[in-house]
Amino acid sequence: MKRITILDIAKELNITFSTVARALNDHPAISAATKQAVRETADRLGYRPNRVASSLRSGKTKIIGVLVPRLDVSFFSSVLHGIEGVMNENGYTILLFQSQESIKQEARGIETFLRSRVDGIIASISLETEGNGSYSEVRDRNIPLAFFDRVPQGLDVPAVTIDDYQGGFMATEHLIKAGYRRIVHINQYRDINIFNERLRGYLDALKQYGLPIDENLIIKGDFSLEFGRQCVRELMAARIDFDAIFTLEDFTAMGVVQELKAIGKRIPADVGIVGFANEAFTNLVSPTISTVDQCTVEMGEEVARLFLKLLKKGDYYKHKPEKIVLTPRLLVRESSSR
Amino acid sequence: MKRITILDIAKELNITFSTVARALNDHPAISAATKQAVRETADRLGYRPNRVASSLRSGKTKIIGVLVPRLDVSFFSSVLHGIEGVMNENGYTILLFQSQESIKQEARGIETFLRSRVDGIIASISLETEGNGSYSEVRDRNIPLAFFDRVPQGLDVPAVTIDDYQGGFMATEHLIKAGYRRIVHINQYRDINIFNERLRGYLDALKQYGLPIDENLIIKGDFSLEFGRQCVRELMAARIDFDAIFTLEDFTAMGVVQELKAIGKRIPADVGIVGFANEAFTNLVSPTISTVDQCTVEMGEEVARLFLKLLKKGDYYKHKPEKIVLTPRLLVRESSSR
Repeated sequence: MKRITILDIAKELNITFSTVARALNDHPAISAATKQAVRETADRLGYRPNRVASSLRSGKTKIIGVLVPRLDVSFFSSVLHGIEGVMNENGYTILLFQSQESIKQEARGIETFLRSRVDGIIASISLETEGNGSYSEVRDRNIPLAFFDRVPQGLDVPAVTIDDYQGGFMATEHLIKAGYRRIVHINQYRDINIFNERLRGYLDALKQYGLPIDENLIIKGDFSLEFGRQCVRELMAARIDFDAIFTLEDFTAMGVVQELKAIGKRIPADVGIVGFANEAFTNLVSPTISTVDQCTVEMGEEVARLFLKLLKKGDYYKHKPEKIVLTPRLLVRESSSR
Repeated sequence: MKRITILDIAKELNITFSTVARALNDHPAISAATKQAVRETADRLGYRPNRVASSLRSGKTKIIGVLVPRLDVSFFSSVLHGIEGVMNENGYTILLFQSQESIKQEARGIETFLRSRVDGIIASISLETEGNGSYSEVRDRNIPLAFFDRVPQGLDVPAVTIDDYQGGFMATEHLIKAGYRRIVHINQYRDINIFNERLRGYLDALKQYGLPIDENLIIKGDFSLEFGRQCVRELMAARIDFDAIFTLEDFTAMGVVQELKAIGKRIPADVGIVGFANEAFTNLVSPTISTVDQCTVEMGEEVARLFLKLLKKGDYYKHKPEKIVLTPRLLVRESSSR
């Protein structure tokens, strides 16, 4: 099928190419009558503007790239839900890219977004990302950038996070108040700010309630259901005494629940459990799993609003970037209610 | 930061602009020595090609758009996993768009992909899409297109699906063989091919095993956990006798399980349950839920391979499109094992 061009419209109306081009761009020098004739002819012939070319001129595509580690966990798909709501209302379209927790894939995502001429990028960094990853390049090109949850440490950019320290503190405090005394904490082996903060909250809660800190009760590894099971097996094998487990996230908590059930421990009577993230399944399983809710939809909406404000400012990197910190909510369910 | 251009390289080497441009494009008229000098100088100065401009010339961006209803269910995120594996291996990058089951959003996604100059689109249509939706336009522009699972009825394009009839048949046959006789089937109210096929499988299994078809046992609605609960409440209120429920998908099955447990029915002793889709949570809950696995990763890999073959052919719409139908697998778990 032959593509209809501006030239075809010009020939049809017997006017110049540049008159048609200016009429289509609503140029003030062109009369209303000519503009109408051009628009009608364009419609009749089936003319479609070359959007890439026009976005190169205007610099605006109304497309925002959202770059996240993965979309198969409730946390990210739920934040995305919040972002899409606000962005769609404001006439923006969202393109998505998964870094799959890989710094290399993340760089590819950024490059792809820049090639697609997005108006800006909203992101949460991969677990592998150190320093600023490839995000410095986005800043160097003066393309607006905002982060949620996982933020590069060296880049001073707008961001929405939750108070992870508070989340760790409230989970641990709840277990202490429910009468648990030997509380295991399963954390992550990488040096990542949000995870360090949850650990700090755990430690401070123990201190505040006068409980000793026992290094044997702090386990670091990668998070997964299988790792949760493994932790319980190792605690049992090492004959370490414990009566509660607070995990870094919910899949690990699920593994802990499965393994404890398999060896005949009663939850919450013998062992209390609190996860983190409020994954959808935590409210479907038996026992339902207590967890820390990260206000995901709100986080998505806030980062979208913050981003829209940024777009209006124009000089994206000349202002002091706005930071929003949300307070997490503890959800007490069966796994820690005794 | 000033952007390094081809002209800067030309000045630095004291050669012409066009020599540099041809060297960078590996033109045969340029000597190997000149090409090497140009490449080294480009690296030293930090030259980055303007990819949008070069993709406009070559017509290839190596970006594929994947358009799916939603990414917060295991089915789509898992098919995507298969697509990404094969596509990344072959040097393609994936951009994602969620139609959110809306035909309007779907049209926006297609437009956004076309504006982003994707090399092609892999899609699964929204529940609202009737006829060909906006996909005819993709075909009219001779941009390659392939579908998985949900395929527009009027468009003759390459597609990978599962045998949904077979899935419905094997789920029902399994319940019959386990001794269940009054089997409820919860389906969808819309006229959508894959769902109609599951119903046809259910009906044929009953016929083949000499069981009567009772219209009271066939319920149509929208699928959700809440709808599953509602169906059980309505069956009980109407005093309809049943001993098994086969649902169209797993969230509905989860709702059925919750409501049956709430009213004190034993699963699988009193009522057997089979879902559809093998959502991740079905293996985490108690009882674990029997379901039909749709070979999601394989489906993603197959549609990606089919798409790569298509890209090589060039004349995308002049060949008879290839169709692949995968056979689903029944996963028997606690909810139907008596």
